[in-house]
Amino acid sequence: MEKIRVYAPATVANVACGFDIFGFAVNRPGDEIVLEKRTEPGISIIEITGDDGRLPKEVAKNTAGIAIQKYLAHIGREDQGFNLSLHKDMPLGSGLGSSAASAVAGVFAANELMGKPLTQKELLPFAMEGERVACGSAHADNVGPSLLGGFIIIRSYDPLDIIQIATPLDLYASIVHPHIEVNTKDARGILDKEISLSTTITQMGNVAGLVAGLMLPDYSLIGRSLVDVIIEPSRAILIPQFAEVKAAALQAGALGCSISGSGPSLFALSKGEETAKQVAEAMRDQFALVGIGSDIFVSPINQQGPMILPN
Amino acid sequence: MEKIRVYAPATVANVACGFDIFGFAVNRPGDEIVLEKRTEPGISIIEITGDDGRLPKEVAKNTAGIAIQKYLAHIGREDQGFNLSLHKDMPLGSGLGSSAASAVAGVFAANELMGKPLTQKELLPFAMEGERVACGSAHADNVGPSLLGGFIIIRSYDPLDIIQIATPLDLYASIVHPHIEVNTKDARGILDKEISLSTTITQMGNVAGLVAGLMLPDYSLIGRSLVDVIIEPSRAILIPQFAEVKAAALQAGALGCSISGSGPSLFALSKGEETAKQVAEAMRDQFALVGIGSDIFVSPINQQGPMILPN
Repeated sequence: MEKIRVYAPATVANVACGFDIFGFAVNRPGDEIVLEKRTEPGISIIEITGDDGRLPKEVAKNTAGIAIQKYLAHIGREDQGFNLSLHKDMPLGSGLGSSAASAVAGVFAANELMGKPLTQKELLPFAMEGERVACGSAHADNVGPSLLGGFIIIRSYDPLDIIQIATPLDLYASIVHPHIEVNTKDARGILDKEISLSTTITQMGNVAGLVAGLMLPDYSLIGRSLVDVIIEPSRAILIPQFAEVKAAALQAGALGCSISGSGPSLFALSKGEETAKQVAEAMRDQFALVGIGSDIFVSPINQQGPMILPN
Repeated sequence: MEKIRVYAPATVANVACGFDIFGFAVNRPGDEIVLEKRTEPGISIIEITGDDGRLPKEVAKNTAGIAIQKYLAHIGREDQGFNLSLHKDMPLGSGLGSSAASAVAGVFAANELMGKPLTQKELLPFAMEGERVACGSAHADNVGPSLLGGFIIIRSYDPLDIIQIATPLDLYASIVHPHIEVNTKDARGILDKEISLSTTITQMGNVAGLVAGLMLPDYSLIGRSLVDVIIEPSRAILIPQFAEVKAAALQAGALGCSISGSGPSLFALSKGEETAKQVAEAMRDQFALVGIGSDIFVSPINQQGPMILPN
């Protein structure tokens, strides 16, 4: 194969109680990469669309470019050159794992073109290196679910220990992306560095409850566990109307609602697609009340990760 | 029914990473209560054996007595009197839920004799009141599994939210009770009141991993998740030879090993009964090396909770 077109999904990291340890993928939005082999070594980013000119075409600063470079070095094939086109089909800086989707699409595409020397799970460290460029640290809570699909637990970063768990078929995510921006580094900076033992216990109970709720499955338990007493209280103040939008989601029937990644997008989980649509619309309408425009997305939990598209 | 004999199992609370939120029951050791209706109101504790005279016969100070009193008040039957005999078949102050087993056996026996007006789960708050007498606070991580059997998650205390999850059939617990004592109130007092965000994230990853490992099931994941970075480092110093005994358990094939409740007992989990026996013996031998005598117990995860015995 000389050329491939790959789509990698957006992701919701943290998932209320699971700061840095939980993430799941959705079907839309996502990123598309076209990767083509060429005779001369090196990677050229020949086109980026959908980013309003904000992403760097310099390979060493581009999450997809870095991920592919690290991958080629690992398999000892830096002699292989690529031309890369990136089509952003999702908002940047939205808390939906935009940089992760690009890195995953890139490294997945490269591995396909190289004849799949590595398994999908083995691609994770290279996609994480792409994340390091965007976020300053090599997180896996977006990259993991975008690469593997499903709901992901990152049990440990050192050594990296990623677990994929089943989710109930009728579980749908509603995402609202308000047209405001939150810088991820700022969003980390405002977090408390110390947490009380009792708050930690409350959060651990919800972490355990969410995993059990997804696996049993028990929709009510999922809802009761989608509570974040550590991160959300700090970050919610960066998102105007957060409390009102969350209340609107719950009022419309969501099991739970919180910040997607470091925001400003919010996500909600619901039982059934119809409820999830109503929840998404309720969130959009609530933002609109104060003049904030937004995009909404409704999706089941993506079970597949990256997908090869017809050229 | 006028008279009943009930056995309630010992329990391992905390289970490494799950301070205050995890607990499981074992088949042995445990407590036995004989409860008999009588015509005059009030509860008389007519006999306690196996406690070396250390437990109070005064009803208001006895965990089983309190639990039954609270239960009778709730169902509006304080007119019904009981004679109670308690036979401790387990060590006191050992970190194995001794007071919880007594409270559970008592309230379960009373509910049976009253014609089961409450479900087993509904008995929990009364057994917890018994715990309050022993520990100063109404914890559920011993009472929950002793009453319900299995592996228990306490997602929340207020409101009380208890979830029972399946455990793999071949999972066995090894328990070693060294003949030293740790006061539960002291054991709580030495804990850090503030925890760093990064330590909290590590613990949350292990909490999520342990629930997933038990439910998948995945024995290796169970083992990797049986890690406590918050409580064990503080409490281990109260138990002489802790590091050496834990190392001996792992060396003998245990998936993981930590402190049972607030100690001084240690528990380990293993795949298979034979391994669990070798692990228990290795832990006992290690304590013996420094002249500390101990009792060992090997059991699958108890799935039943309290049991009615022939009179």
